[in-house]
Amino acid sequence: MAPETTASSVERFDAVDVIRAKRDGGRLSDDQIDWVIDAYTRGVVAERQMAALAMAIFLNGMDRDEIVRWTDAMIASGERLDFSSALSRPTTDKHSTGGVGDKITLPLAPLVASFGVAVPQLSGRGLGHTGGTLDKLESIPGWRADLSNDEMIAQLESVGAVVCAAGSGLAPADKKLYALRDVTGTVEAIPLIASSIMSKKIAEGTASLVLDVKTGAGAFMSDEADARELARTMVDLGTDAGVRTVALLTDMSAPLGLTVGNALEVRESLEVLAGGGPADVVELTVALAREMLAAAGRTDADVEEALRDGRAMDTWRAMISAQGGDPDAPLPEAAHTLEVRAEAAGRVTGLDAMQVGVAGWRLGAGRSRPGEAVQAGAGVELRRTIGDTVSAGDVLAVLHTDTPERFDRSVEAIDGAWSIEADAPAAERRIVLDRIA
Amino acid sequence: MAPETTASSVERFDAVDVIRAKRDGGRLSDDQIDWVIDAYTRGVVAERQMAALAMAIFLNGMDRDEIVRWTDAMIASGERLDFSSALSRPTTDKHSTGGVGDKITLPLAPLVASFGVAVPQLSGRGLGHTGGTLDKLESIPGWRADLSNDEMIAQLESVGAVVCAAGSGLAPADKKLYALRDVTGTVEAIPLIASSIMSKKIAEGTASLVLDVKTGAGAFMSDEADARELARTMVDLGTDAGVRTVALLTDMSAPLGLTVGNALEVRESLEVLAGGGPADVVELTVALAREMLAAAGRTDADVEEALRDGRAMDTWRAMISAQGGDPDAPLPEAAHTLEVRAEAAGRVTGLDAMQVGVAGWRLGAGRSRPGEAVQAGAGVELRRTIGDTVSAGDVLAVLHTDTPERFDRSVEAIDGAWSIEADAPAAERRIVLDRIA
Repeated sequence: MAPETTASSVERFDAVDVIRAKRDGGRLSDDQIDWVIDAYTRGVVAERQMAALAMAIFLNGMDRDEIVRWTDAMIASGERLDFSSALSRPTTDKHSTGGVGDKITLPLAPLVASFGVAVPQLSGRGLGHTGGTLDKLESIPGWRADLSNDEMIAQLESVGAVVCAAGSGLAPADKKLYALRDVTGTVEAIPLIASSIMSKKIAEGTASLVLDVKTGAGAFMSDEADARELARTMVDLGTDAGVRTVALLTDMSAPLGLTVGNALEVRESLEVLAGGGPADVVELTVALAREMLAAAGRTDADVEEALRDGRAMDTWRAMISAQGGDPDAPLPEAAHTLEVRAEAAGRVTGLDAMQVGVAGWRLGAGRSRPGEAVQAGAGVELRRTIGDTVSAGDVLAVLHTDTPERFDRSVEAIDGAWSIEADAPAAERRIVLDRIA
Repeated sequence: MAPETTASSVERFDAVDVIRAKRDGGRLSDDQIDWVIDAYTRGVVAERQMAALAMAIFLNGMDRDEIVRWTDAMIASGERLDFSSALSRPTTDKHSTGGVGDKITLPLAPLVASFGVAVPQLSGRGLGHTGGTLDKLESIPGWRADLSNDEMIAQLESVGAVVCAAGSGLAPADKKLYALRDVTGTVEAIPLIASSIMSKKIAEGTASLVLDVKTGAGAFMSDEADARELARTMVDLGTDAGVRTVALLTDMSAPLGLTVGNALEVRESLEVLAGGGPADVVELTVALAREMLAAAGRTDADVEEALRDGRAMDTWRAMISAQGGDPDAPLPEAAHTLEVRAEAAGRVTGLDAMQVGVAGWRLGAGRSRPGEAVQAGAGVELRRTIGDTVSAGDVLAVLHTDTPERFDRSVEAIDGAWSIEADAPAAERRIVLDRIA
């Protein structure tokens, strides 16, 4: 019946039939998937119909073949680039599922590029408690995120590293679907996350890809088993599409490093590029760099040496300059600060990444809706993190903002984020939990 | 986090939080339900958000308390009538979940009203394979479906029976939600069906209600266990709201009676009102009339006598006249007919209601989208139904349409609808399968 109630004669399928098939626990055929993604992109499948389908997929899942086809259909909705054949350098790409204080792209891209490898980083802006790589870099005076494809290719060839906004041409179906999922409670579905990320990465035509899949309180997928399944699904998708793909499962229970906020995170990234910086940020940067270089055939690269001897910093400066930024300009600082102090003594055994992320967001470092401006100088500077000892009255963090009326709600968010135990032994924090290839 | 990403400060909840609660298998609080229905009616909860929530409800269900509150919230979205206190007669109402050839309202309303009981029948138009009561009555020259509340009350007081279009004031949230469910594959969810039907019935303020819940191939709920659960849910909802409610579970594996189509069904209804008509239509009309009269306190009414002695027919004539119809005008007939003949001999052991319904729809008796015109004379006239014996070459049905190019697809739909077995014994068809009170 249904084809006659809603489909026009020129459409191969009826959206209601497709929704019902998934709703009733069935699998979608290749033709159904191709049609529904194409018809949604064309506006023939309505937003409310895709919302119902997304929820049915959330609750009833998709099998591996369905996810592969769904990803292919999203790739087919837009243009394909081909970094690999446009460049004389080998290309490798990285994607992180996002977390609090995750500034790794900033030191990582120039570090890897300093070995003669091309690193295209098509990045996004922040929303909610997680920051966006573009927002961070935009705190550097003059730096611009929007490059044409030609500019991007030229910079990859000359500098090796580029971090810029993804054009609207790659997987437009994904762009539309992502915005829908965001307001319909259908974000955290593994098939939809995996196909969203991988459609863009496959469409850009990278030869290899390293995934940083986070788990823990501050991650998108807080449950480790879910994060592992997501990693496995994405590695399979990439491998099937001919992209050498590996995933690291990494800890996001606590923030990465000691800064959360745009210019604050740039400053910390510069410390890493200068051979210093917090141990966890260095560990993850180095681990990801090794994977990326290995995927690009550079198994012999001495990553730590490139941080120590300034090669990575040189590439950073070239990367920033190429996009109009002044690498020597002072970074913006917020007009107001407030200290958060410890009430009791002991050792920090936990630091809730989500709470810190929300605090930074509320200080003005993040946005509540797309397009909202962020404060370059706002954020949280952590003075005590996991493993540190604390005396009562010690400063745990310094909050930064241009708008001091934001302090109250930020303090509220961060209150209780530190777990401090009187007699806890020192314990090392592991960042890289597993490797999935 | 979510409240800050999508809710404005004046809203009590965030749609995404409500969706996620149901998606994750939780129950919605009273406040969440009140808010989401109200905000959806106001347009603050978007169509795509309600689509995702409807699918989550479809797959994860609602408990009894949630269904009660959901129904109450839909009632609160609009006006309430009060038939019971506006009238000197006792009121009773009937609702059928719909089926093929289900013209029961036509003889039933005047039959019950002939005993001094008020029978308001706020009815709809057909969509897809099931016909609409208003479409059927509109085949009577002059008859009009749209009455004001005052006209409806006056006719209930004078004639007792009224069949008219539901105004837009009753449960507007349901109207909006029903249109959404129709295009998002979320129609067949028992909590949503039950609350949809009962919100309108409770809002109209009837004192008692008899439900005709169909099961079998031609029904909305083809599975008997589902139909039983729907009946039980609705009886509970009505009872909780102070409406005396009873449900009959009835068979819709085969069409009711021998006609499917607008004027064709009016003609058959007139046969019943004249004391004749097919046994199954008479059986169900009488069973429902007894329940309605009992609910209105008239346990002594001799229903069959009122059909035989012309009292029901007199009330029919008054009802049609009161709404501008001419009860003596000839009914429209289709310009073209085509006979469908049997290929083999035997006894009819099954007649697929869905196939017959689709055939009638394709002949022009039904519509594919709201607002489409229907043909008054089109439809299927059955010559052989369950229990009948057939010889090869016998006419099984006559198809009627004004547009003979429709015959091909109609014949295709009805092909194989009759199960004919050579040596099958005679077996009686039971229409009323159970009573749920």
